[in-house]
Amino acid sequence: MKIVFVGAGRLATNLGRALMEAGHDIVQVYSRTQESAGAMAQIVGASPATSIAAVRKDADVYILALKDSVLADIIPQLCKGSEAVFLHTSGSVPMEVFQGMALHYGVLYPLQTFSKERAVDFADVPFFLEASGERAMRVAEELAQSVSNNVSRLSSADRKQIHLAAVFACNFTNHCYSMAADILGKHGLPFSHLLPLIDETAQKVHTMSPREAQTGPAVRYDENIIRAHGEMLRDNPFVKDIYDRMSMNIHRTSQGNL
Amino acid sequence: MKIVFVGAGRLATNLGRALMEAGHDIVQVYSRTQESAGAMAQIVGASPATSIAAVRKDADVYILALKDSVLADIIPQLCKGSEAVFLHTSGSVPMEVFQGMALHYGVLYPLQTFSKERAVDFADVPFFLEASGERAMRVAEELAQSVSNNVSRLSSADRKQIHLAAVFACNFTNHCYSMAADILGKHGLPFSHLLPLIDETAQKVHTMSPREAQTGPAVRYDENIIRAHGEMLRDNPFVKDIYDRMSMNIHRTSQGNL
Repeated sequence: MKIVFVGAGRLATNLGRALMEAGHDIVQVYSRTQESAGAMAQIVGASPATSIAAVRKDADVYILALKDSVLADIIPQLCKGSEAVFLHTSGSVPMEVFQGMALHYGVLYPLQTFSKERAVDFADVPFFLEASGERAMRVAEELAQSVSNNVSRLSSADRKQIHLAAVFACNFTNHCYSMAADILGKHGLPFSHLLPLIDETAQKVHTMSPREAQTGPAVRYDENIIRAHGEMLRDNPFVKDIYDRMSMNIHRTSQGNL
Repeated sequence: MKIVFVGAGRLATNLGRALMEAGHDIVQVYSRTQESAGAMAQIVGASPATSIAAVRKDADVYILALKDSVLADIIPQLCKGSEAVFLHTSGSVPMEVFQGMALHYGVLYPLQTFSKERAVDFADVPFFLEASGERAMRVAEELAQSVSNNVSRLSSADRKQIHLAAVFACNFTNHCYSMAADILGKHGLPFSHLLPLIDETAQKVHTMSPREAQTGPAVRYDENIIRAHGEMLRDNPFVKDIYDRMSMNIHRTSQGNL
């Protein structure tokens, strides 16, 4: 199976590396810039391409790992008249983006956060698949199962919900780490002090629900502490605002309100 | 060294168990209710007490693991005229709460999130110590070092900052998990789908700063996705509000603004 990657960002680079290590043949990597196409092409042992016209027509699968806003532009240029399988990797774009453009298409969505500097171990990464028909599903399954033990099928509608949940569980969580790091940094205290706490907070929700695991002054709405924290954050109204709303919502939901 | 625990909550129960397992002699556990005093007393092999008058006077150390609001009430009743060492475990109460009340006193602050159902491994838990003098510091160090390899001294002012940072890194992070769990639950999707993502999000900040690790639609403020997510959250204005403010602050700080 000859694979072309369209897109060479963080997700593409990590997924491409994992597929290559699983023995797949990645023949080409497209990206708008030579720097980006070349960097990933080198990692996965492929040739780079920097225009859609230069993308090979003879591959079996095209994996479109692009920004959502770019997908709809690229698809007509890439898919028209092709017999190949086209898969995108986005959490929030419905499969129907391919409709009328490609014959065999689907979605291969790995639920993980990717950075170029860090190689992700894919074994436990959940892959959510969707396909226009059997042939595309077979290809998506073969690819996903070659790198992960956690592969399932999911509709576009549910995938959108998972993507939204992931924004909270990953992006907003990381921003909480970031605000914590800023507070410590301002007082010359190392962020590493927080790592055992961050790890235990993540570990706890493996064995209890997040609601049961909730601790801290907001649960019982301890006004003395919350007022003192507000005072400590007075030079950063954006962060104080987030503090207040998070505390209120923790308290509200601790009372059993959804 | 005879130890009395004043307070039998989550922190007390976990710290008491760890100290007992390290070979310390916990002789008594005070709590207002028999149920709570009895439960922890049984775990740590001590006698329960439910009134301050019944607390033994002959211990060497009293560990006050109480709500902040209760500390100031209990200290005068407990410490007056005693030669023992008194340590509280609060992140946000200054050591001076003991001033004029006890002769030897200090703070033993373990930075961790505790639940009664889950025994914490203390080996990596950072302990932050503060003491009125050498005798109290010696006792605090002996206790902390017997359960943890991560013990340091810290002023009340810096401890307050660490406690505030911990509210973000632990309590608010867990609330992000909780909001994610609610979104999935409403659509019949299991929270366990998110665990590999949650783990990787925590692992990433061991090797890069949270700001470098930040991903997601808010970084580049992808308006299409953010608007669609707002629409999906329209039945929960509290959570939508948190979504908007977190996204704005992620974008703002990604631009290099503090």
